[in-house]
Amino acid sequence: MIKDGKIFQGGILTAKRILSGMRPTGKLHLGNLHGALKNWVDLQNQGTYECFYFVADWHALTSDYSSTDSIRENIIDMVIDWLSVGLDPRKSTLFVQSKIREHAELFLLLSMITPLAWLERNPTYKEMKEELTNRDLSTFGFLGYPVLQAADIIMYKAHGVPVGVDQLPHVELTREITRRFNFLYREIFPIPEPLLTNVPKLLGIDGRKMSKSYDNSIFISDRGDALNRKIMAMFTDPQRMRKTDPGRPELCNVFSFHGLYSEEAAVGEIEVECRRAGIGCIECKKRLAARIAGELKTVHERQDYYRSHMDEVRGIIDDGNARALKIARATMEEVREAVKI
Amino acid sequence: MIKDGKIFQGGILTAKRILSGMRPTGKLHLGNLHGALKNWVDLQNQGTYECFYFVADWHALTSDYSSTDSIRENIIDMVIDWLSVGLDPRKSTLFVQSKIREHAELFLLLSMITPLAWLERNPTYKEMKEELTNRDLSTFGFLGYPVLQAADIIMYKAHGVPVGVDQLPHVELTREITRRFNFLYREIFPIPEPLLTNVPKLLGIDGRKMSKSYDNSIFISDRGDALNRKIMAMFTDPQRMRKTDPGRPELCNVFSFHGLYSEEAAVGEIEVECRRAGIGCIECKKRLAARIAGELKTVHERQDYYRSHMDEVRGIIDDGNARALKIARATMEEVREAVKI
Ligand code: SF4
Ligand code: SF4
Repeated sequence: MIKDGKIFQGGILTAKRILSGMRPTGKLHLGNLHGALKNWVDLQNQGTYECFYFVADWHALTSDYSSTDSIRENIIDMVIDWLSVGLDPRKSTLFVQSKIREHAELFLLLSMITPLAWLERNPTYKEMKEELTNRDLSTFGFLGYPVLQAADIIMYKAHGVPVGVDQLPHVELTREITRRFNFLYREIFPIPEPLLTNVPKLLGIDGRKMSKSYDNSIFISDRGDALNRKIMAMFTDPQRMRKTDPGRPELCNVFSFHGLYSEEAAVGEIEVECRRAGIGCIECKKRLAARIAGELKTVHERQDYYRSHMDEVRGIIDDGNARALKIARATMEEVREAVKI
Repeated sequence: MIKDGKIFQGGILTAKRILSGMRPTGKLHLGNLHGALKNWVDLQNQGTYECFYFVADWHALTSDYSSTDSIRENIIDMVIDWLSVGLDPRKSTLFVQSKIREHAELFLLLSMITPLAWLERNPTYKEMKEELTNRDLSTFGFLGYPVLQAADIIMYKAHGVPVGVDQLPHVELTREITRRFNFLYREIFPIPEPLLTNVPKLLGIDGRKMSKSYDNSIFISDRGDALNRKIMAMFTDPQRMRKTDPGRPELCNVFSFHGLYSEEAAVGEIEVECRRAGIGCIECKKRLAARIAGELKTVHERQDYYRSHMDEVRGIIDDGNARALKIARATMEEVREAVKI
């Protein structure tokens, strides 16, 4: 966890910084919301940290270099979702990676000092290569993904990186690369610490991992009939065929959602009633749909607002880019001086 | 060889371009002069090509990332040598790679589309790794050397790349990466052709490959006693122990140098006299020293001039950087549009 270290930039004591990024997959789903975004908003609102959140569009190329048609639209859609769930551009810096070209330069410099073996043994690299067999992932850039990630993080001298447990090896690699830079040249970078995000287990409506590519997602933007239909279609306890069969909430994805969206008392009641076949799945889902719709109401209002104020969205992005660029430029001045190049 | 292709940049028909770079090793030796620089000057003076020559300082980091203290000084020393042997900033664009940050961005984008296997099978990669065992070369950046080289070349939409035969595999890799970019996104880049440079075999004074790291080089800047001493110390035919032994010019490095520096008639005479022990090695070397000193006279005058006009040197570099930057910016606009990022 973050220690009580202090950092000076240009002689000025700054707040502790955190940085996190997301690939521009377009509109976000509830898995993204509960897996990362809510945490981003919490960190922002705690006021302890200066928060930097970025659209990792260059990272999108590591796996999708051959289908880039929708990247730009996806960036806008995603930022609208960010704003709608409560990221506040007055509090957080929201920016787009590829607009801060300094990331590429730092990536290049870090490339020179990163041993190949560190990247080859990266478990996420091995896994992703196995998972995504349908794409030609054995590229040089894909192997170097963690080097680019390291550049993203240390560019802003981040102290903390909010991540899920599966991304811990990446942060560890960033820490190693950062230590190596500090050792070889000059100690300019704090060693970033992972801020572990507790990721609740939310599955897609078909019971598999919620993912755009499985077409099983409930999107943050889903509402009305569309939202209801998806919830009604959710898989439940597979052994509960009839309303008269008792159910096992611990095996039911709908129940996991209730855990996030319903009041504690209501969750307790469902648990009891499900086990003794006192509530049917349809009724249970209706209650969930109402809760989710209720919680997303403000989000949808904000979405409507931003959809009809696209210039404002673009302005927010431009503004975030400008703030990020200023810091990136200052960092690269220091880096070039340290590397003597 | 270069075909009669034409290229338009921003709608304007431009001359065919060539691009070549050199690592900033500091002051150059006669091996560099005859292996590359003379050819650069010839290409410049032919007037057929728009010539871009750059200091590959980022490339220097692929092997020397841990000792960067002298890079900046080496850049100046090398550019002074370039100017002194006849590169003319009014005809050629002389620039420093790291000042054109766009190279890093293009490197990043090309990384994403370059299969790892292409880099791993690169013979130069294998060789260099074996040769330079004293340095930790198994870095990600070292493996990606040809990707950065591809970015350097296509940034200027070069048609030709003057190279020695040992670098042909690199150019081939650049061609493959360029084809892949054109295929995946849009055909913006000409496929560069290698312009094979005939590299005469010049060894160092100890008979090994002339190289700064062997401390066996005759530098372009060597003159007077220093130059004479080095030439007098040169290894000759190892079997010619006494002046009365007949020599074998074909095995003598001094004789190779005569081939480059002496008139044809004089070379013929030495060949005959050496074989019948009619000329001693000391006399032979004295003649060579006089020839080299004569040829380098203008070079040394220019060196003296630039050494006492360092502001002019810096101005020339700034000016070249500005010219290169303009083109690099235009290229990257096109690239980003093509990649849709
Ligand atoms: S009643 Fe609710 S918790 Fe129980 S199986 Fe049905 S949907 Fe799941
Ligand atoms: S005479 Fe000249 S060419 Fe013959 S061995 Fe001696 S140095 Fe070489």
